[in-house]
Amino acid sequence: METFKLRQYYAPNFDNEPFISAPNAKLTAVIKDGVAPFDYHAISIYPEYFKVEGRWVLAEESRMDTVPVVRHQPDGGVRVDTVEFRHLKEGDLVVCGRTEDASEGIYVHANGFLDPEKRHETFAFRQGKSRETAFSRDYDELYRLLKYEKEHGYVVWVMGPAFAFDHDARDAFCELIDGGYVDAVLAGNALATHDLEGSFLHTALGQNIYTQENVPNGHYNHLDAINRVRYYGSVAEFLKGEKIEDGIIYHLEKNKVPYVLGGSIRDDGPLPPVYGNVYEAQDAMRSHVRKATTVICMATTLHTIATGNMTPSFRVLPDGTIREVYFYCVDIAEFTVNKLADRGSLSSRGIVTNVQDFIVNIARGLRET
Amino acid sequence: METFKLRQYYAPNFDNEPFISAPNAKLTAVIKDGVAPFDYHAISIYPEYFKVEGRWVLAEESRMDTVPVVRHQPDGGVRVDTVEFRHLKEGDLVVCGRTEDASEGIYVHANGFLDPEKRHETFAFRQGKSRETAFSRDYDELYRLLKYEKEHGYVVWVMGPAFAFDHDARDAFCELIDGGYVDAVLAGNALATHDLEGSFLHTALGQNIYTQENVPNGHYNHLDAINRVRYYGSVAEFLKGEKIEDGIIYHLEKNKVPYVLGGSIRDDGPLPPVYGNVYEAQDAMRSHVRKATTVICMATTLHTIATGNMTPSFRVLPDGTIREVYFYCVDIAEFTVNKLADRGSLSSRGIVTNVQDFIVNIARGLRET
Amino acid sequence: METFKLRQYYAPNFDNEPFISAPNAKLTAVIKDGVAPFDYHAISIYPEYFKVEGRWVLAEESRMDTVPVVRHQPDGGVRVDTVEFRHLKEGDLVVCGRTEDASEGIYVHANGFLDPEKRHETFAFRQGKSRETAFSRDYDELYRLLKYEKEHGYVVWVMGPAFAFDHDARDAFCELIDGGYVDAVLAGNALATHDLEGSFLHTALGQNIYTQENVPNGHYNHLDAINRVRYYGSVAEFLKGEKIEDGIIYHLEKNKVPYVLGGSIRDDGPLPPVYGNVYEAQDAMRSHVRKATTVICMATTLHTIATGNMTPSFRVLPDGTIREVYFYCVDIAEFTVNKLADRGSLSSRGIVTNVQDFIVNIARGLRET
Amino acid sequence: METFKLRQYYAPNFDNEPFISAPNAKLTAVIKDGVAPFDYHAISIYPEYFKVEGRWVLAEESRMDTVPVVRHQPDGGVRVDTVEFRHLKEGDLVVCGRTEDASEGIYVHANGFLDPEKRHETFAFRQGKSRETAFSRDYDELYRLLKYEKEHGYVVWVMGPAFAFDHDARDAFCELIDGGYVDAVLAGNALATHDLEGSFLHTALGQNIYTQENVPNGHYNHLDAINRVRYYGSVAEFLKGEKIEDGIIYHLEKNKVPYVLGGSIRDDGPLPPVYGNVYEAQDAMRSHVRKATTVICMATTLHTIATGNMTPSFRVLPDGTIREVYFYCVDIAEFTVNKLADRGSLSSRGIVTNVQDFIVNIARGLRET
Repeated sequence: METFKLRQYYAPNFDNEPFISAPNAKLTAVIKDGVAPFDYHAISIYPEYFKVEGRWVLAEESRMDTVPVVRHQPDGGVRVDTVEFRHLKEGDLVVCGRTEDASEGIYVHANGFLDPEKRHETFAFRQGKSRETAFSRDYDELYRLLKYEKEHGYVVWVMGPAFAFDHDARDAFCELIDGGYVDAVLAGNALATHDLEGSFLHTALGQNIYTQENVPNGHYNHLDAINRVRYYGSVAEFLKGEKIEDGIIYHLEKNKVPYVLGGSIRDDGPLPPVYGNVYEAQDAMRSHVRKATTVICMATTLHTIATGNMTPSFRVLPDGTIREVYFYCVDIAEFTVNKLADRGSLSSRGIVTNVQDFIVNIARGLRET
Repeated sequence: METFKLRQYYAPNFDNEPFISAPNAKLTAVIKDGVAPFDYHAISIYPEYFKVEGRWVLAEESRMDTVPVVRHQPDGGVRVDTVEFRHLKEGDLVVCGRTEDASEGIYVHANGFLDPEKRHETFAFRQGKSRETAFSRDYDELYRLLKYEKEHGYVVWVMGPAFAFDHDARDAFCELIDGGYVDAVLAGNALATHDLEGSFLHTALGQNIYTQENVPNGHYNHLDAINRVRYYGSVAEFLKGEKIEDGIIYHLEKNKVPYVLGGSIRDDGPLPPVYGNVYEAQDAMRSHVRKATTVICMATTLHTIATGNMTPSFRVLPDGTIREVYFYCVDIAEFTVNKLADRGSLSSRGIVTNVQDFIVNIARGLRET
Repeated sequence: METFKLRQYYAPNFDNEPFISAPNAKLTAVIKDGVAPFDYHAISIYPEYFKVEGRWVLAEESRMDTVPVVRHQPDGGVRVDTVEFRHLKEGDLVVCGRTEDASEGIYVHANGFLDPEKRHETFAFRQGKSRETAFSRDYDELYRLLKYEKEHGYVVWVMGPAFAFDHDARDAFCELIDGGYVDAVLAGNALATHDLEGSFLHTALGQNIYTQENVPNGHYNHLDAINRVRYYGSVAEFLKGEKIEDGIIYHLEKNKVPYVLGGSIRDDGPLPPVYGNVYEAQDAMRSHVRKATTVICMATTLHTIATGNMTPSFRVLPDGTIREVYFYCVDIAEFTVNKLADRGSLSSRGIVTNVQDFIVNIARGLRET
Repeated sequence: METFKLRQYYAPNFDNEPFISAPNAKLTAVIKDGVAPFDYHAISIYPEYFKVEGRWVLAEESRMDTVPVVRHQPDGGVRVDTVEFRHLKEGDLVVCGRTEDASEGIYVHANGFLDPEKRHETFAFRQGKSRETAFSRDYDELYRLLKYEKEHGYVVWVMGPAFAFDHDARDAFCELIDGGYVDAVLAGNALATHDLEGSFLHTALGQNIYTQENVPNGHYNHLDAINRVRYYGSVAEFLKGEKIEDGIIYHLEKNKVPYVLGGSIRDDGPLPPVYGNVYEAQDAMRSHVRKATTVICMATTLHTIATGNMTPSFRVLPDGTIREVYFYCVDIAEFTVNKLADRGSLSSRGIVTNVQDFIVNIARGLRET
């Protein structure tokens, strides 16, 4: 199998106009915690550069719909952080201005991964995805991408509550975890509950995850799983105490792969590690997204959009090079897939299918290639 | 227009068998906060009676997937509360047992609103709803129900983020608020944000809510709305300060109709009144659901399921009589509508349509009839 | 209510270049019935002009994916007909060439309804429709359009099998027929069968169209309706013989509004007027589409795409002026709505909703405005 | 892999009551071609027996919504044919009566494949399918079923127009054809057109079936494919003349697997072998369904319902034994899948997914097991 090739990043040439004559960006201090100056600049998913004290500085850890805050560093340098509104503190210096073309010292570099020679070419294949789109090539690229990321990247998987409902899908994802293709999982209380119900009682919402049969009094099963974990005090103790050795959560724990469970108003229980406060959950999720080079979202509108909101189109690697972040949305509903695609990143891709088949295909593809 | 007629409730006759010989329900004390005894009984959406000290006691404020806790009252009486797992305290006396037929002192009265003479009749029209279901009668009944509830009930409306995207839908719902058909609203940060963006800047996510045109730099609009509200410190101050006199939130504030905004990991901002902790949000939501006689959920899977989980099929009125609670789920996706219908209550109804048309039809129907 | 204003048509100025120097279009004779020369030109939905014997001639009755055939008229003039492949006859002179810019004597005038002064403006609101699109303005325009068309146009309604399943939807459409808003209906055997079942036995597929109750042995009802019509030999005789005075088909017959029922492999029966041969059905459908100024398709992928394929974006009126043809696709599935929108006409519009609500809204809107 | 086991058929015991005392079925002669007596009996998908001249006779080649016609055979025996309304001829003896319990000499044997000892057991897993259903077991059973059918059965595949849009899906289905898993294909003009476009020009509707790139002037491609086949006069001549050696149609022709292409009002062209008359198409389709032991429908509502209408739940094998017919509906829309499931046969199964993934999974599963 051909190795995956990342596209090169073409940084703006700041030695040219309009960058040289551009003014410094306007900075305004926050006067009330959590409130930005009215003409704040909002960050996009693209690399954004700000002219501060005569030098163009990249906001390295980007996040859409946050504001750029200029922070002087002990070493005399300047960093531009991307800060959520709720984290703004009195005195923070916020970049203000709503242009993107350097005329106010703000430059949004939307086409950095396109060869400057070829940027004029139109790409006729950028369009909505549907059940009738041909996805063969997307699968082939994804096999190659995941093999690449296993060595060089950080793959964050985002999954909805029903992901654990099917026997083969659970097995396939566990195979990916054991294979080293999973660096972090973002999900909610329900995903973990259904998975642990499956490990503990072989059902999901009371239905056998292989035979589809509803077991007697099965509507107790997810509550029993939750109650038992709460009794043990932690998922790890529960797995040990009940001698559980299968399922997604078990394999995450076994492989020491971190997972963040964000709470929601739908939750029963909740399980002990769930974040009841959604903004703390966002911070925990973002701690992984800050490292992510590929994000794959499956069968969840809520978590997909939440993660999509905080995933930039690029990543600054430790050696200073800049690479693309790949973002996949896999869902059976065109509505969800295209909602994400509207964020407009070239590197955002949608696959319209049942996630059970998707993950089974991915596991088989990685095995065979 | 014919007046809406509630169905009568037929309580079990506890002077008969099997109730007389049934044992008292088994009670077990909680030994760890937030953890139920392993054989706890879980509450359903139906009226449930528990035999305590020889008397059958109804759990009056019911909620699915909670546990019944027996509490002795100062007046010597006994109450059965329905308590979420996370609210259990050491020493709470939990009813244990998983039968429903009185044999363990637990009786689930699933058909209380059917005439005992007629319970054997099969109801051929209980079935899945689809885009091809005929909904004329549902509309007619809903007009009558809402007129009835305006005088006698408490109507809780639950709405998804996109509800405020359309000009006519907003107007129609404001008309319902002014008309006295809305007792509480349950929603999230996004619904309120989009609505306030509409009031403040006439757009939703930057698109004009009437002309559908994208305005320049419109992607700033929802952030500007949020930031401005945070600046004022409260929605009420924002509405006053910006002289806003239209929109859903404005009409709720004007009519002093309470609304609960539950947070989610998707949230920008958030707006000041949003509950960041989802379990506190659940408690706030349930404070309204405890009073609800009709619940209407529109275009939100998250809030609909959250509310559905906490809505019982019956309500004990102040005069002690028991009536049905009507629960509607209105959504364009059969998947969402039927997911709710699976909770199995006769009084749960689904309408498969675009909620814009639904609410415009409801407002017109209430006006014309 | 403001009167509907048609946009002006700006014809190309053939006295300018590149039209003057352009060559005559290449004409090649058909050598086998039903087969075009390999380099045939295929017609689009836009006005297309062909240079024949030095003069630019518009293909007046356009249809996508057909070929232009040049026909000399008895008066010495030249007409360009748009001919389906299956109707090509040996000797027919087909325009060949696949350019659109006059360089081969073929000119496709895609932006004829845009003011030449303003064609450079980008229209940010051309985009996919979803359940979250704001449709208020579409409704308002449609009310105005239909009032205009009642006086000046020819409105073709296309409807799927389930359209007749709902009591209010049937009534609303009958009101439109009586009101003069319906010039022709295109549908299939199932629509007519369900509607006649409703008139004859008050059910659709055995379910009462108002109460949703399944009647005993109701699965016989659609077959009984078909069998009875076949017994009478025609729909008109059936209506008379069974004294039926309600329903869509009844109102069409009463108002002498023509309807075409195209057969499909799903059909039971069929009813007598159904075209068993689908290509004869196409010809019959096109006989109405040739006159159509507005086409409204509701809840049918099959008939919508069939009609969309044969509907051009413009119409040459008897006085020689050229106007737009409005094409609406109303469906609950984004997939269907956007599939049509992909044909790319500015005048094609999608509304994502349940057609029951759509038609009830349209009838009320026409009444109230 | 475990061998697939068919369920046993338990015929009614006609030596018992109520069969012995039951009257002969009422027979009424047709008095007008194509019209049944008003009290005709309509056939269901289940085995149906009719008492004729004192003996219970099974309608062997069943088809829903047709009428049973009694025909005396040259050998003195009696056959009950199931005849479409349109095929009824004057004098045909139609069984009349609408009961199913033998009381009018008509017996519908709905539970023939359930062990009489166990028929009282309720099957809790009969329910609607959704994207959240666990399908692992369905796949495993299908692998086993197809291996069984390859030796003993007749598998009819029904496919929608978009099935040929994807590179891997086409390859997977060709592998099934070559492997002997395909006995007949039912489809339409569009499926064949897109597949031949793929073989001829490597695109589907102008989009490369692997890279998803739109090729220049690609909207001509499906018309070019059709026109070229019409030029050759037949698909076989086209494949030979253009030296095509890939694709679904090519593999069908190569393996002499019959396919029926039923026309529709959406068709361009059409290709030569397409049935323009839909009732002739039904007859051609039924000629294969009469032999089918398994039917698998993928991504087409039109052809799925058409085929479902004519597929009974059982088949009489040459040796006189009766076996089940397996019917699968695979579609990404719950609406379509559940519409079919409503026909109520235990042996009808739905899988909610993208058919591309489905067929790739099936091919891999058959290879690996």
